[in-house]
Amino acid sequence: MTTIFEKIIAGDIPSNKVYEDDETFAFLDADPVNPGHTLVIPKEPYKNIYEIPNDSFAAVMNTVRKLAPVIKEAVGADGINIGQNNDSAAGQEVFHFHVHIMPRFEGDGYTHWQGAENYHKGKSGEKIAKNISGSL
Amino acid sequence: MTTIFEKIIAGDIPSNKVYEDDETFAFLDADPVNPGHTLVIPKEPYKNIYEIPNDSFAAVMNTVRKLAPVIKEAVGADGINIGQNNDSAAGQEVFHFHVHIMPRFEGDGYTHWQGAENYHKGKSGEKIAKNISGSL
Repeated sequence: MTTIFEKIIAGDIPSNKVYEDDETFAFLDADPVNPGHTLVIPKEPYKNIYEIPNDSFAAVMNTVRKLAPVIKEAVGADGINIGQNNDSAAGQEVFHFHVHIMPRFEGDGYTHWQGAENYHKGKSGEKIAKNISGSL
Repeated sequence: MTTIFEKIIAGDIPSNKVYEDDETFAFLDADPVNPGHTLVIPKEPYKNIYEIPNDSFAAVMNTVRKLAPVIKEAVGADGINIGQNNDSAAGQEVFHFHVHIMPRFEGDGYTHWQGAENYHKGKSGEKIAKNISGSL
């Protein structure tokens, strides 16, 4: 399925591009949470973290690491959040793998989600950890 | 400055470990937002995304990519959020670089922050993009 991001890479939909190399493309989010909110994507349309090949994932993350301090400086931010969502249950809206670089400012009002409940605090954690490590 | 994560790696503070290799360590978050909430860290105590060297960053992200689908499956989640916070303004509390892998379930109540305002929607975006790309 073609997404809006392929059209942005192709230039068929305009964007505020901040960086491009052979494998990755970065542009300002059209609906930013703060100035400088940037998306980094692979040029190939992999859907999510489960499907993107290791080398493309590494290329995208390398661009993220390169851009994060430059964006922070360019907009005079006090911090940077990196976010990446997979599946609609996690808030993914465009099904082309993308990483958010979100500048943060003291007092901008964001708080981290604390979860609906505290699920496995010292209770089922050991079992869950074994389920995960046993599946690797 | 020594953080709690170095003590966790050393085993001086107990944790529910899910994975370990030469460069990285992964364990369940002690205050999870959902079951299976995992932190992936480099064994070396780099502070944030600005200070971690490229190879250590790549090793951590490689572990994140390896664990994400396994965690999703192990806890029967509907989605996965990846998050990484830099500086206290961005909610960083432990100053040892770490990546959150957060399982998500339909109806768990999380919503993404939409920002205090819509800052540069089609207005100053072009200038901001040039400030960033011009600094690379």
